[in-house]
Order: sequence, then structure tokens, then C-alpha cells
Amino acid sequence: MIAKNPQRIGVLTSGGDAPGLNAVIRAVVKTAVNLGYEVLGIEDGFEGLIGETKYRVLTNNDVRGLLPAGGTILGTTNKGHFGGKRVIGSEDDPYLEAKANAERLGMRGLITIGGEGTQAIALEFAKLGMSIVGVPKTIDNDLPGTDRTFGFDTALLVATDAIDRLHTTAASHDRVMVLEVMGRHVGWIALHAGIAGGSDVILIPEIPFDSNIVAERILERERSGSAFSIVVVSEGAFPKGGQPLYANRGRLGGVGFMLTDQLAELTGKDCRCVVLGHLQRGGSPTPYDRLLSTRYGAAAVNAIHNGISGEMVALRAQEIVTVPLEEATGHIKTIRPHNDMIRTARGMGVSFGD
Amino acid sequence: MIAKNPQRIGVLTSGGDAPGLNAVIRAVVKTAVNLGYEVLGIEDGFEGLIGETKYRVLTNNDVRGLLPAGGTILGTTNKGHFGGKRVIGSEDDPYLEAKANAERLGMRGLITIGGEGTQAIALEFAKLGMSIVGVPKTIDNDLPGTDRTFGFDTALLVATDAIDRLHTTAASHDRVMVLEVMGRHVGWIALHAGIAGGSDVILIPEIPFDSNIVAERILERERSGSAFSIVVVSEGAFPKGGQPLYANRGRLGGVGFMLTDQLAELTGKDCRCVVLGHLQRGGSPTPYDRLLSTRYGAAAVNAIHNGISGEMVALRAQEIVTVPLEEATGHIKTIRPHNDMIRTARGMGVSFGD
Amino acid sequence: MIAKNPQRIGVLTSGGDAPGLNAVIRAVVKTAVNLGYEVLGIEDGFEGLIGETKYRVLTNNDVRGLLPAGGTILGTTNKGHFGGKRVIGSEDDPYLEAKANAERLGMRGLITIGGEGTQAIALEFAKLGMSIVGVPKTIDNDLPGTDRTFGFDTALLVATDAIDRLHTTAASHDRVMVLEVMGRHVGWIALHAGIAGGSDVILIPEIPFDSNIVAERILERERSGSAFSIVVVSEGAFPKGGQPLYANRGRLGGVGFMLTDQLAELTGKDCRCVVLGHLQRGGSPTPYDRLLSTRYGAAAVNAIHNGISGEMVALRAQEIVTVPLEEATGHIKTIRPHNDMIRTARGMGVSFGD
Amino acid sequence: MIAKNPQRIGVLTSGGDAPGLNAVIRAVVKTAVNLGYEVLGIEDGFEGLIGETKYRVLTNNDVRGLLPAGGTILGTTNKGHFGGKRVIGSEDDPYLEAKANAERLGMRGLITIGGEGTQAIALEFAKLGMSIVGVPKTIDNDLPGTDRTFGFDTALLVATDAIDRLHTTAASHDRVMVLEVMGRHVGWIALHAGIAGGSDVILIPEIPFDSNIVAERILERERSGSAFSIVVVSEGAFPKGGQPLYANRGRLGGVGFMLTDQLAELTGKDCRCVVLGHLQRGGSPTPYDRLLSTRYGAAAVNAIHNGISGEMVALRAQEIVTVPLEEATGHIKTIRPHNDMIRTARGMGVSFGD
Repeated sequence: MIAKNPQRIGVLTSGGDAPGLNAVIRAVVKTAVNLGYEVLGIEDGFEGLIGETKYRVLTNNDVRGLLPAGGTILGTTNKGHFGGKRVIGSEDDPYLEAKANAERLGMRGLITIGGEGTQAIALEFAKLGMSIVGVPKTIDNDLPGTDRTFGFDTALLVATDAIDRLHTTAASHDRVMVLEVMGRHVGWIALHAGIAGGSDVILIPEIPFDSNIVAERILERERSGSAFSIVVVSEGAFPKGGQPLYANRGRLGGVGFMLTDQLAELTGKDCRCVVLGHLQRGGSPTPYDRLLSTRYGAAAVNAIHNGISGEMVALRAQEIVTVPLEEATGHIKTIRPHNDMIRTARGMGVSFGD
Repeated sequence: MIAKNPQRIGVLTSGGDAPGLNAVIRAVVKTAVNLGYEVLGIEDGFEGLIGETKYRVLTNNDVRGLLPAGGTILGTTNKGHFGGKRVIGSEDDPYLEAKANAERLGMRGLITIGGEGTQAIALEFAKLGMSIVGVPKTIDNDLPGTDRTFGFDTALLVATDAIDRLHTTAASHDRVMVLEVMGRHVGWIALHAGIAGGSDVILIPEIPFDSNIVAERILERERSGSAFSIVVVSEGAFPKGGQPLYANRGRLGGVGFMLTDQLAELTGKDCRCVVLGHLQRGGSPTPYDRLLSTRYGAAAVNAIHNGISGEMVALRAQEIVTVPLEEATGHIKTIRPHNDMIRTARGMGVSFGD
Repeated sequence: MIAKNPQRIGVLTSGGDAPGLNAVIRAVVKTAVNLGYEVLGIEDGFEGLIGETKYRVLTNNDVRGLLPAGGTILGTTNKGHFGGKRVIGSEDDPYLEAKANAERLGMRGLITIGGEGTQAIALEFAKLGMSIVGVPKTIDNDLPGTDRTFGFDTALLVATDAIDRLHTTAASHDRVMVLEVMGRHVGWIALHAGIAGGSDVILIPEIPFDSNIVAERILERERSGSAFSIVVVSEGAFPKGGQPLYANRGRLGGVGFMLTDQLAELTGKDCRCVVLGHLQRGGSPTPYDRLLSTRYGAAAVNAIHNGISGEMVALRAQEIVTVPLEEATGHIKTIRPHNDMIRTARGMGVSFGD
Repeated sequence: MIAKNPQRIGVLTSGGDAPGLNAVIRAVVKTAVNLGYEVLGIEDGFEGLIGETKYRVLTNNDVRGLLPAGGTILGTTNKGHFGGKRVIGSEDDPYLEAKANAERLGMRGLITIGGEGTQAIALEFAKLGMSIVGVPKTIDNDLPGTDRTFGFDTALLVATDAIDRLHTTAASHDRVMVLEVMGRHVGWIALHAGIAGGSDVILIPEIPFDSNIVAERILERERSGSAFSIVVVSEGAFPKGGQPLYANRGRLGGVGFMLTDQLAELTGKDCRCVVLGHLQRGGSPTPYDRLLSTRYGAAAVNAIHNGISGEMVALRAQEIVTVPLEEATGHIKTIRPHNDMIRTARGMGVSFGD
């Protein structure tokens, strides 16, 4: 019972949850339906194109009320058949299977919403001649090729709000509060939230830190009359000459707790740690993220409508453009050491522990 | 250079930080100044009455803009000279020293804002004949003698917002999300936030749990079409026949992480844990907490003005009353097993793991 | 095709929108389904029981995700067939028609969520022998028989947040900012938000005001160094010897704008007015309102299950009880002049314009 | 008693209140103090440089806790001695007087935080040879020369939150809700919030509207099953062939109320209007605005430190740059009709009433 409508557009969400996924889906549906397409929502990421396929037709009714809703109504998969290294030409190449299924479903084009991993998979499909357009998502803001990914502004709001809350307790108790935020390889959330929340120390993966220097900054503040300090640390930050220390899935904490222990010893002060974790991924997107998601979704449909493939929609200054998927894959966007924001923070007395 | 003004009222904040402390201080100052008193803000809790004493005069100007501000401008101490067991009649009894200092400062009465420990200290002072009135504070809501303590409503907002955020991620990824909230001995935050956030399992210290029963509830939900679940657990909840497992100050997690590991094993599902920690203590108080704090602060001044001592202001239904400090000390207010809210939750299918 | 299942429970929402309606519906469904009932959601208030009847069966699936959602999925009607005075015995008595329809639908009982008007209609039905239980809703908190109605805490949050925002502008520009809030006959929102937001003047319908006294308070503040003032006024507040001046549905403002003009003239200061209006009615309910709504919904089902009728669920101190519908109708709950909160506010220098 | 320290930097805030003013002041102080400057906070905008002068030295202590605070601790003036047309060479030219005062105070440079009017005044001073650097502020986002002004993102949050709230009431009651937002000459807030909130109609000054077309869109939605609609209208939007109809300072409403009346008549539906007004100007800045304000403040100090004058700091894509004050004055930045966001909205079925 599979239709052969050449006017179908598929959409899927892949990788970790991010606020704005549903807003993109909504914009895709409303824009595509307006142009006369039928939209197929592929379920559980690329997995929905394997085997029996899992999808459902999405109409304007299905996306009603979706703009402020976090999460994704289509579900998502982090790993799966496309997680490993592709063995081209192998009998059970999932790419060929998924491509055949997409053709059978009569898709004119597929919109893939995700991060670097997702866009790398999309690029493989594009090389196979499938019509595909990417939409950049990551709360980490580490995707190259675009000025901003959606989800980041909402994560920033959660992290800044957390700093505000810790601030009052730190000040009331003369404490050091350490906040560990997301960012395994990049420090964008820590840097932005650290400045927006007025923290005293910001530690990011791009700048290895020295705990003694952090401790010294805290003691220096104490000598000048500020008996408390706020430290924001990316989960991927690590000491000079050391290694990243991610939290174990089990009960063992990561860099935040390790640093907190060290600072307690080095400063003799009462030090406490909070790990924000998944709170940064969920909830209703900010207006900024809703707007960006909506523009991305609409632009992706227009790109497919105009015969574009193998590209990703992207924000460049004020405009939405498309860039080759190659530009968005193969590496991640890290913070340069002389970044304007780092200089701004240093100029105001913020320590990066180096 | 110490005045002997008989028209002075002292105020101090003691114990852990809670949203609304500053709002109480503001109400104390505005109300007392209106009645002709001078207000002395004692710094760092009862410690400010020891030795040289630490205090400052608070005027209406000093409390401007304080209503929405979290924390306490007076600072607070968790433990100190009054932390251990009092040896009455000992040479360096801190109570006698503090009482002498309070008299020397010309205090007509002292307002002590804090939890059970604080009110117990206040009661000791009252027994020594010092004029003292308590204001009930604890984000845990476990103080007896009053229907509500300020700080609890704000903690509830933070915890419920966290559940909302975890909800979207849980649903998008078919995950089990475990949220550990405050409550070493009582489950008020977990129970209220669990219901307000619509969680599927609520684990509290008052009801020892069985991980197998929790896992079964999660699998039962899956069978009926809900592939995700939200579990809220008090930090003091513990398994049947077991012991509380508080998070270590170091890197080792507490009951939340332990349970998450067990559920992953028992259900075979992707399970994640977030520990809210100090986020529940800070930030701007909710309107409810601002109003309650303000009423408490004003009522405490009026009590002292009317010659009341050895009492604590309290909320009884809609009214602010005073109750003997004895009623607020010596034990904490736990949740009765047949509490109306527990029955409500059970009736809607929420599991308490028992 | 109408079933005759005696195990059906109906639920409807009536009157103005309020945050928490959906939360009550969700609790009704989850609790009733757990007890083996089928739930009928009656659409557009009592209107859904007239003529062809408009209703749908509500299952647990239908109420998924409804807890944090504002509004009502069942729709509501402010006026309609039940708006006017009932002519008992008349041929087209809508009560008899609705009762017959309810019986035909096999309803064991009907849950009516609404304010004073709704409960008055419910009482009429109860007198006709129909099994009916009310759930108290009004953002104004003016319903007698219960300590609190749901929706009020959320309205309070919106109003207090508005005062916080106006505060910064007032202070920066040395202005008088007037905020008009809901409350045609009662000042609960103005009184609570006024104190929680730290306003300088609170004007409520229960205390007729004198603009000259308000102006004098503003000038007095200016003389003592506070060049700005915040005035909160209920839409139903009115001058001594005057009449309420509600905003015209058209372009003509109400008491807020009138007062602002007068204060500008009397004080010579820059005065501005904001009318909050419908912003107070919508959006996601606060944790407090979600919890109260859930407890009410569950209690209403249990009441019907236990054969109770002609009663309304209500909050009394900490407990949910039922009270005769007569207690909740016929009058509204106004603020007594010597209310504890009014005395608190006066004691801190707040003017009520009298 | 006026110092002649050549190492002084002045800072003032001018024009309407906007969230982020205090964050700029904080960044100016922290950065300048770090560079060895003394900072003079000029009070009440340029007025503080007239006559006796009003200013105070600002240290790091003075800006503690200022980052999340709305408003401006320096006060601001909308009009004043610099409001009218300058008569160059006149005896009481306020520019010459202010310049002389600035020199007497030993200012190396002056930082002027404000909108188009403020920057125009700054340009006059620059022409007189005074060292001056502007910081762009306007919640309307209409300042040319920069991609973004601070304050806009916070206004957007307030407006989007308002749409969310109105949405639930509109849907519950099958109503048309009209939200009037700021924007006398430009529709940036209406356009951004309209898309982020999912409104059905967006009316902006750049596109004159026809009420019949708006009404037709509402009825068309009703026919397709959506009985409610949300209309967002800039205060400066006006009908084709008509004039802007600003709200009177008195009781008479502006375009929002006018349109609401017309739509009620044309559609026969229940239509309600809310005017957001000053709620858009106040409160704590969003993380985005705090970050932008901080970067602007630091960049302004660095510009003066590096001998730059007659320029304004500005955001260009991701970077902070300086642009000649001429580029930021003389006109405002309006929305071009083929703007990417307008096309996005139209493609999703949003009507602009044309």
C-alpha cells in the first residue's frame, strides 16, 4: 500500500534531542504542504528507512501546537545501522537499502535534521545520488558551515539560569560553586553562559587548565573582598598535560567533581558541584531557537523544491543560505584562543585557568 | 561605641540558603522602622553574636530591591559555636556570651530565620530569658508547627521545570530519566514536583522502595505503549531493608545514580540520571514565597512589638499565627503514608516502588 | 449509537479560560479509567449537553502531555442556554433537556469545572436529582467554600513578573507605573501581586480610593528619595463615592488609564499605564496550580465513585474536602478590610488610597 | 574639588529603558578599571553634563550583581537640553557647555549608550573634537550600522511569551486575540515574535494592511477547522491609504484596539486585544542580551583606549566592530519587503494583511 507520489518530501530527526526539532518539523510540513507536497515523517532517524520502514504522513493538523514543544514527535536514534563504518558494496549496506526504500516511498527529497554525524550520513546518501538537504542541529554549536545551530540558545538559557541560582547561594555561604555544562570537545556553552552569568572562572576543552591557577584566582578574589566564586567548566575540559575525564555512566562523576575536590583542598574553602546534564537538552525552545528552526525548516523545503541536494541550510550573519554538506562534516567548530569573547572575558578579569 | 537603645530589634539568617531570606529581612526592616525601631542585621547567623560581634544597622535604603533577590545579605552559617551539644554552665558557653552581647547591643528582641536547627537554638535562648521570635525556613518543608515554610515553593518550581525538560528528552529517545531532588529525611519536594511534573514513579524516604517493582512499572508502561518513564527520587530515599545512600561530597553519586544503574540492568533500557542539587536552593523566590516571607517578617516584628517571645510565626491555613518554639523543634514533619496526595498519585497510576 | 454504560463519568469546562483546566481533565481521566469508568468529555461547557450533544470519549492517550498545557481541550462557553434566568417548567427548559441527554449517555455522574456561575448551574442540576460534583476554578480566587481555586497562582505569577519588569523602567526614568490587573469585584490578584512585587500603592474594589491620597503617597516617596512609584489597581477598583469604570470593549480604557491621567496631573510626574488583561488567563500552569488541579480532579472522581452529589471539591488548609454547592454559590469571597495581608502591607508603608 | 585625571572614562545611558543597560555599564567599569582607568558614571543621560554636572565614580564594587538587573543605575533622560535643534554658536549651546564640563572632569573619552537619537547627539560631540564612542541600544532593533542592538532579544522573549499565553485562551474560546507590540516605525518585534509564537497574521509598519484581508484570513482558518486566530500588530502598523494611530497617552487605544473592533464586525467572532506596552522594556536581560551588552561595553572601552572616536561599536555577523557614527544616524533600519523571514512566514501561510 505504498504510494508512488513523486511529490513527497521526507523528514527525519537524528542524534541527540535538542529544543527546536519539533519546530523544524512543523515548518517543513507547513511549507511543503503549501507547495503541494505530501510530507512523510520518518521515525527514529535513519532507522525508519531500514527493513519494513517506519513513517507516517504529516499534515498541518499533525503539527498544530508543535512550535513551543521540546523534543521530536518523530523519535530519534543516536546509533544504529549507520553508526559504524560503512563497508561499501557489502551485501547488507544499509545505505543502499534505505535509498531503495526512499525511492519506493516516492520521495522527491529527504530532509535530515541533526548534527555532524547526521550530516555525514546525509553526505553519503547524496553521493549515492539521493536528493537530500541537511538542517544543522546541536546544542553544542560545534557544527561548522553555519554561524548557529538551533538548540544552543535554549541550552544557554538553562545554563545561565543555573549560574544565577548558584550565585545567590555562593554569595550567602562564601562558597565556591562549580557548574559542569555540556561540551565534550568545544566550550561554546561554557563560554557564552559563563560570560552571560558573570562567572569568575571559565574552563573549556580548547584551553587546558591548571587547578593551581584556578585556586589562585579564587583566593585573589577573597583577598579583594569577594569571598565566593563561580566556576563554569565544560564536561570536556581537562588539565594541562592531562586527559578529559567524562562522567561515568555509573556513579562516578567527571571533571566537575574532580575539580571541586581539588579546589576544596587547594583553597580550604567550601566547594560544591552541580552537573547540569540533560537539563540542557530539553524543554520549550527560546524564541531565538524557534525562529531559527522555523527558518531552517522552510529553507530546507525550498531547497528541495528548487532541486538543490547535498547541501545543508545554514545561518550566515542575518541570512539563511545553503552550503555543501562537505563544509559541515569531517571536523567540528572549536573556539579559537583569540576569540573576541575570550578577550572580552579576560579583559574583565575572568580566568581561563591558563 | 555601642548604643544602649532599648528600641532595637535584631535579625539573623541561619542554616542553608533558601529563596525568600532577603524578602523576610526586607519585611522586618520596613515594618520595624515604621514602628520606630532601629534594626540590627546580625551577620553570619548566630556567629555574629560571638566575640567582637558582627552586625550592621539596616535602614529602608538597605533593603531596597531586595524582595526578588535570592540569598541573604546577612550571610549565614550552617554550623559554628552553636553546632555541638551545649554544656550548660561551662565557662565558654556561647549562649551566655551571645545573650550578653545582645543585651549590650540594646536589643529588645531577636528574629531568627532558619530551619529546625535554628529554632532549637532559638529555644535555648528563650529559656535563658532572651526575647526571641523564630521565622520558619526550609526548602524541604519539613518544619513542624507550620503548614508551609518559605523556599519550598521555589524549590518546587525548579524541580518541576526540570521534570518538564527531561520529559521531552525521555519521550524522544524512549528513555528512563531519573531526577534526584533534595530531601534527606522527607519526600515533600519529590512528592509535590513528581505530581506537578507528571512523573511515573516517585520514591521518598517515607516509603522504602523495591527496584524490581520500579522496573516492573517501567516495563508495564512500555507494554502499554509508553516507551519512556520519568522517576523522581528524594536524595534520602532508600531500598527496603537498605540504608540511605547520600552522594559523597567527592565524585561518588548517591541514590539517583545507584537506582539508574539498577534500572538499566533490570529493564534493558537506556537510563539517565540528573541530580538537581543546589539549583533548588537559589534564585529569585516565586510570588508565593515572596508573599509568605513578607508576611512572616512583618508578623515576627509585630510579635516582638507585642511582647511575645519563645514563639515562631507560622502559617495555619490562611492565617499567620505564632506557635511555641517547642512545637517546631525536636522532630521533623514527614509525609504520612495515607496522605491525600499519595492517594491521589496512586489513584492515577503513579508507583511509589512499594 | 449511544451506549447505555452505567459506568460513565462526564466532565466539562465552563466559563473563562484558566491555567489548570487541562490538568483537571487529565486527572479525572486517569483516575476514572483506573477505577474502570469510561470518561465522556462534554464539549463547549454545558452547551455540549443540548440538542445533538457534543462529546468525545477520553482515554489515557487523549490526556498525554496535557498537564503543563494551558487552556482546555474541551472548549468552554461563557454564556449560552444556561446564561439567563431559568424558567422552571417551561417547555424548552435547557436543564431538563441536558439532564435527559446525560441520562441517555449513561452518565453515572458529571464533573463541572468552573467558577461561581458554573457551580450555580451545577446546583440546579443537583436539585433535579442529577449526580454532579463541582471543581472550583477562577483566576480571581473569589469562589467561596474553598481556600484556593486553581488558576490564581498562575495569574499571580504573571502579574508579579509584570511588576518586576515595570519596576526597572520606573526606577530608570523616575516614573509612576500603573498596572491594571484582573478583579472586577475582588482584589485578590492586586493584593497578592502587589505585595509579592513590592508595589507602593494597591487599589482594590473592597477599599474605594481617593486619587489625592494616592498622589500624596507618590510625592511623599519622592521627598524621601524614591522618585518612582508602582501602583497596582484591580480593574474593578473605584474612587470613593464613584463607580467602577471597566475598560470598554472598544478603544476606551478603564480605571487604570483614568487613574494614570489623574496622577499625572496631580503629581506632575511622568505616569504610564499597562493593562495586563488576558495575559493573566493563559499559559502553562505553575506547579502549585498543576498540583491543586490534579488533586481536585482526582477528588471529584472519587466523590462520584462514593456516591456523593451536589457538592464541590475544595481546599481546606492542607486537605481536599467536599462542600455543599450551596456554600460555593450565591455570593463571592471578597477581602475583609482587616485581612492579615492588608495589615501586613499597611505596616510596611503600602497605601490603599484610603 | 574636581580632579584632572587624564585617565578617566565617562559613561552615560540615554533614551528609553532597555534590558542590558546595566550589563553594559558593568562591562565598561570592569574593563576600564582593569586597564587602569577611573570610570565616571554620568547621571540622567547627557543632562548630567549640564550645569553643576551630576556624576559618580563607579568601581567594581558598584557594579556587583548588575549583570542580571534590568534598568540603568545611572538613570536616563528621553529629552532635555539636547532634544531640540542645535543652534550652533548660540550663547547657551548645551554642547559647548557639556564639552567644557567633560574636559574639566578630565575625561579621556565618553561612552554613550543609546539609540538613534543618542548616537546623533554623540556625533555632534565628536564633530566638536570630543573623544566619544557609542553603544547601540534599542529594543526595536531599528538602529542601522549593526546587526543587532541589545534589548531586542528580551523584548522578543516577552512578546513571544505573551503570544503563547494568548494562544491557549484563543483556542479554548474560539476567539481572535490581537496583540499590539512595540515598533512605531519598524516591525522587527512583531515579525520575530509573530513567527516565534506561531501567529496567523502579522501586521507591520513596512506593509500597510487591509482589514478585510485580515478578516478573510481568519474566516478561511475557521472554514478549515481552526476556529481561533492570533494577530500580532506593531503599534505603528496602519491601514493601506491610512495613517498610524498611536495609542493616546490618555484612555484612547491605538491600532490594536481599532483593528480588534473592525475584526469583530467583519468576522462576527469574539475578538480581544492586549497591548504589551512597557512590559517589553523592563526586566532581566536574556543571556543573549547580557552577552551582547557585555561585549559592547568591553569593546567601547577598548576603542577609547585605542584612540578611536566618533564611532559606534556594532555587531557584524559574529564579530564586534566599530562603525562611523554617521552610519548609525540619520535613518532607521526597516524591514525590506522581500526579507527572508517575511518570505518564510508567507510560505507557511501567515498573512501580512496585504
